[in-house]
Amino acid sequence: MQDLKQRKPVYYSEYLQLDKILNAQFPESTKEGIKADDEMLFIVIHQAYELWFKLVLFEVNIVCDIFRQKEISNNSPDIYNAVHRIGRVCKILELCVQQMSIIETMTPLDFLDFRDLLRPASGFQSIQFKMIEAKLGLAYDARFGKGYYLSQLNEADINRVKQAEADESLLVLLNRWLERMPFADSVDYWKEMGVESFWDVYEKAYRESLSENEQGNLATFEKLFTNSVAYPEGRSFSRAANRSALFIMLYRDHPMLHLPFELISYLLEIDEMLSMWRHRHIHMVQRTIGKRVGTGGSTGADYLKSAADTHYIFKEVAELTSFLLPRNMVPVLPEKLRGDLGFK
Amino acid sequence: MQDLKQRKPVYYSEYLQLDKILNAQFPESTKEGIKADDEMLFIVIHQAYELWFKLVLFEVNIVCDIFRQKEISNNSPDIYNAVHRIGRVCKILELCVQQMSIIETMTPLDFLDFRDLLRPASGFQSIQFKMIEAKLGLAYDARFGKGYYLSQLNEADINRVKQAEADESLLVLLNRWLERMPFADSVDYWKEMGVESFWDVYEKAYRESLSENEQGNLATFEKLFTNSVAYPEGRSFSRAANRSALFIMLYRDHPMLHLPFELISYLLEIDEMLSMWRHRHIHMVQRTIGKRVGTGGSTGADYLKSAADTHYIFKEVAELTSFLLPRNMVPVLPEKLRGDLGFK
Amino acid sequence: MQDLKQRKPVYYSEYLQLDKILNAQFPESTKEGIKADDEMLFIVIHQAYELWFKLVLFEVNIVCDIFRQKEISNNSPDIYNAVHRIGRVCKILELCVQQMSIIETMTPLDFLDFRDLLRPASGFQSIQFKMIEAKLGLAYDARFGKGYYLSQLNEADINRVKQAEADESLLVLLNRWLERMPFADSVDYWKEMGVESFWDVYEKAYRESLSENEQGNLATFEKLFTNSVAYPEGRSFSRAANRSALFIMLYRDHPMLHLPFELISYLLEIDEMLSMWRHRHIHMVQRTIGKRVGTGGSTGADYLKSAADTHYIFKEVAELTSFLLPRNMVPVLPEKLRGDLGFK
Amino acid sequence: MQDLKQRKPVYYSEYLQLDKILNAQFPESTKEGIKADDEMLFIVIHQAYELWFKLVLFEVNIVCDIFRQKEISNNSPDIYNAVHRIGRVCKILELCVQQMSIIETMTPLDFLDFRDLLRPASGFQSIQFKMIEAKLGLAYDARFGKGYYLSQLNEADINRVKQAEADESLLVLLNRWLERMPFADSVDYWKEMGVESFWDVYEKAYRESLSENEQGNLATFEKLFTNSVAYPEGRSFSRAANRSALFIMLYRDHPMLHLPFELISYLLEIDEMLSMWRHRHIHMVQRTIGKRVGTGGSTGADYLKSAADTHYIFKEVAELTSFLLPRNMVPVLPEKLRGDLGFK
Repeated sequence: MQDLKQRKPVYYSEYLQLDKILNAQFPESTKEGIKADDEMLFIVIHQAYELWFKLVLFEVNIVCDIFRQKEISNNSPDIYNAVHRIGRVCKILELCVQQMSIIETMTPLDFLDFRDLLRPASGFQSIQFKMIEAKLGLAYDARFGKGYYLSQLNEADINRVKQAEADESLLVLLNRWLERMPFADSVDYWKEMGVESFWDVYEKAYRESLSENEQGNLATFEKLFTNSVAYPEGRSFSRAANRSALFIMLYRDHPMLHLPFELISYLLEIDEMLSMWRHRHIHMVQRTIGKRVGTGGSTGADYLKSAADTHYIFKEVAELTSFLLPRNMVPVLPEKLRGDLGFK
Repeated sequence: MQDLKQRKPVYYSEYLQLDKILNAQFPESTKEGIKADDEMLFIVIHQAYELWFKLVLFEVNIVCDIFRQKEISNNSPDIYNAVHRIGRVCKILELCVQQMSIIETMTPLDFLDFRDLLRPASGFQSIQFKMIEAKLGLAYDARFGKGYYLSQLNEADINRVKQAEADESLLVLLNRWLERMPFADSVDYWKEMGVESFWDVYEKAYRESLSENEQGNLATFEKLFTNSVAYPEGRSFSRAANRSALFIMLYRDHPMLHLPFELISYLLEIDEMLSMWRHRHIHMVQRTIGKRVGTGGSTGADYLKSAADTHYIFKEVAELTSFLLPRNMVPVLPEKLRGDLGFK
Repeated sequence: MQDLKQRKPVYYSEYLQLDKILNAQFPESTKEGIKADDEMLFIVIHQAYELWFKLVLFEVNIVCDIFRQKEISNNSPDIYNAVHRIGRVCKILELCVQQMSIIETMTPLDFLDFRDLLRPASGFQSIQFKMIEAKLGLAYDARFGKGYYLSQLNEADINRVKQAEADESLLVLLNRWLERMPFADSVDYWKEMGVESFWDVYEKAYRESLSENEQGNLATFEKLFTNSVAYPEGRSFSRAANRSALFIMLYRDHPMLHLPFELISYLLEIDEMLSMWRHRHIHMVQRTIGKRVGTGGSTGADYLKSAADTHYIFKEVAELTSFLLPRNMVPVLPEKLRGDLGFK
Repeated sequence: MQDLKQRKPVYYSEYLQLDKILNAQFPESTKEGIKADDEMLFIVIHQAYELWFKLVLFEVNIVCDIFRQKEISNNSPDIYNAVHRIGRVCKILELCVQQMSIIETMTPLDFLDFRDLLRPASGFQSIQFKMIEAKLGLAYDARFGKGYYLSQLNEADINRVKQAEADESLLVLLNRWLERMPFADSVDYWKEMGVESFWDVYEKAYRESLSENEQGNLATFEKLFTNSVAYPEGRSFSRAANRSALFIMLYRDHPMLHLPFELISYLLEIDEMLSMWRHRHIHMVQRTIGKRVGTGGSTGADYLKSAADTHYIFKEVAELTSFLLPRNMVPVLPEKLRGDLGFK
């Protein structure tokens, strides 16, 4: 950076390319000579959302690149960096929920002034939002109304979403990263306790903790953690990944598991924020257009509701909470393992 | 207030009765000698919610008292007062949603430290919350899991909720207030246009606005607004109330309808905020206890989800939006009526 | 709108001109081959702010157009429209405060990665923000560091701000609108009470309300409301405008004063939100660059602090609160006036 | 917990002691037979604040207990626990800022209905808030208007604040904890680089980074980090503590410094939130009572403003940001030290 002084001076509006950003608002109502002053709000808020979606994609891609590595050294700043960026994504999504309060100042009558001019465009056509879902881990098959987007998007956009779906998602990369964690399964750690793995100990403790009417939980416990099937049916996470994720939740007080626990917590927060955003979106749509058919031909609220109810990307992680034990029943780790999970 | 100087000086902590407020936190874990530092958070946040619920009830009761009057003069400050207070209720509920972010800092493991000590208490036993729902207009029959609360509450509390349900709710009072509005139906206003009521004109305009595949809406339009049945089946709002509510939405630009329109908008916001609160609550529960059975014996998340999906108190108002027309198709009001809706 | 079906179908990304919006992020660090992943956040958040500023300007211009009219009929929707849009501006500014939470996820070290590359650009060069201040009513002479912007902006931008400053601001237009209000000063209303104007009655009541150590307030009261000088020295609001503004605050329960009171409340909220935004901005700057000189050559935090302390555009309105009396001491209005402030 | 089933069933309203919490609202206006419906809001919101303050004190005390320990093992969960709780305090303070939006729904006229009845009580008498400031590190001498509180509080309350001020504050405990950190100063680590400590290397790099007009910074650098005076004049943090804090900021990517860096970030956020709360409070006061003298005899806004400008408890930490270097100029750590800051 020695030559900084020889760089051309940077000017705010050029740096931010405000000639593009601020000359991109062309209301359809203006084109038709119709007075509809709220269309400017409508355009600006959607553009603001798309800016944030661009940043979310940018951050998620960095996080995916980190977890795509074959190996991440314990002392590399990578995991810290990943957690920090996923935390930022949560903050952005929180703002996206809050931002809905601005479009809510548009009344139904004001929307009707220009609504019909927008057909058949709809927020359903936001490619970036679909790419975010895909990059995080929403598979095409799990997508509500999946055939529908083929009919709503142009070919270039379909290809962009398909490409995002074809890439390894954060969910897939996480599964693989979790699978590599040695703590719960390395016999070296556990032979000192006379068992082969942590799960011998934990299954026993978990079994004892169950009251009579909770015995049904045991089958799920086995399916997820101790069964001989490595890839439980109908699940995204493998048995090995489930094991590591629960281990992290149980032993998050040990230094090496701080960041993995933060990571897991943020992923659940992403699902929460996406869900809150969809629900607030539903209300806004219902207040603004009632039960009418949306500009894209869907009954907007119904689509959003189904997506809100089913698009939980990290729900398998959330479900693991059911298998925690109270701290006083959680097995103390073998000494060597405690050492390896801490600092010198 | 002449004798103010002879009043005993007021002291902050006495005025706020802080001896009560700040000496009301007794963790069950402390009683059992169990270390569970997050139980203080758990108690405080629930107490903060109950304080806000007390204020919401207080404000809603004032609003109900206003609408319970047989007649409200056009120039009385009552409607302004009611709208202002309902707006405040929205702000409080918005804070209640935000407040959830604090309990979300409690991790599942930290909750397990004291969770079993709370049985069978649960948030389901919040009488004030049930009273708020009832006072706003949630009928016993429309309540999800209605039988359930009989088994969870003690008799005194059941009676308090029953009493709140027996009172005329804001929904019922609003229906009556809307029914009294003369604008759309007084033949005096409409004979100048050669019709008997606004609805002769509006039904025609609405009918013409429908495209082929929207013809189905017509039956609902008739049921709600023009049918001979005064009390449409399965609805809380009478035909006359529906008429006034839609008229308000259509002509909210006329001075006398400003406040009624604000009122309607705030009521929809209350439903939105209650729904957002329930959904955020659901996420918090799922993150903290997974799919386990709640301390009250319910699967907490399932109860909340059903309540969130069905407890829309003002949903009939929200649905009226479907029957608006774009401004350029909305009939211009007769001159005499325009005059009566405005200032001299 | 008959020919809607013959319009070219609208496509989301074209409608929003996403080719411009999403291709306007070119980090300086990328140009220099320096890794600085947070510059994308830095660019996007500033662009989002500029989008919102564009909308604020758009809304404020509509409001100014409304108040620029020589006369506004009592029954026109204009004041309702103005109040609604000013309320929206408040919501946008509230979001702008909240949005600061995202840039706060950038740590000082991460900012240093690209900070020197931006010189001498700085947020001080945001023309739109300066235009918003000017349009609302911040005069050049009241601007902190006023000479400074001449040296920081290019000529085209200086001219844009100068033009905004030359236009009649909302503050000026409001002053004129308030001056036209006849209620407190028309002798027709007041002779029935044996006085010439409201101020004869109110000054007496106000004088009686003052305790001994508050007598100093009287001089200010006279200067603002009853003195013979129509334009109090050092004030933006004329005596007549002050009179109407206080009258609105006192009698806001009368129907015709509802909207003017809402308007006044929102203007104070705008000042509050701008101030909150500056203070949060100050903290962000201090956390990120400490007491170093900003990229624009200023000590950013000091500039912001001075602006935050002095740029209260509607402070004269806020100060009127000091001259209210408790409701039981506020004079009851003459009957004819009560009638004219209400509906028939 | 085996005997849980023999515990008395817990009932929601008893557990939360709602008989106390919900029977602690006694408006002065009610006692005087004056109608002032907003006094309920006024009482409830202050009680909610006091509940949160109780929780903040509770959490801050736990954090102080952690740092009061003579030594904290690298592998203990204590630092994680402290960081988590300080993060929670930030969330609570964020809510406290947001909560101000509810009192802002009270208009000046509505406050005047009961304001005079409260004299001389004022928020200045909140003991808990003063204790929070003291526990965090605000010394009596640094307190704005310090003599003033002796005259406003009763003796019991003065003693409670005095006691909190006499305890070792978080600031003092942090200083001591930072002083114990061996990384930057242990000659064992640094002899491999041919120097005695990190500061030999860093001072050189920092000196080279300064442009001509920044040479003035050098004196401060020396005062804080390298001067022979161990306790820089006029500062709370010792030279050794400053060294460790800056070292943490520079090398936060190394595992052992993650949590200390989070801790520092949260402390700055606490100052930010307290400041935002005070500023929003100022606006609320100005909108509600103008420039009148507060119920406690102070000009409320002026007191709050001075406190807001001076009560930055962790400002010395914030200022360290000025002495960071861009990443590419930050010295790489010796190998042995890198090892000790990481996992095995």
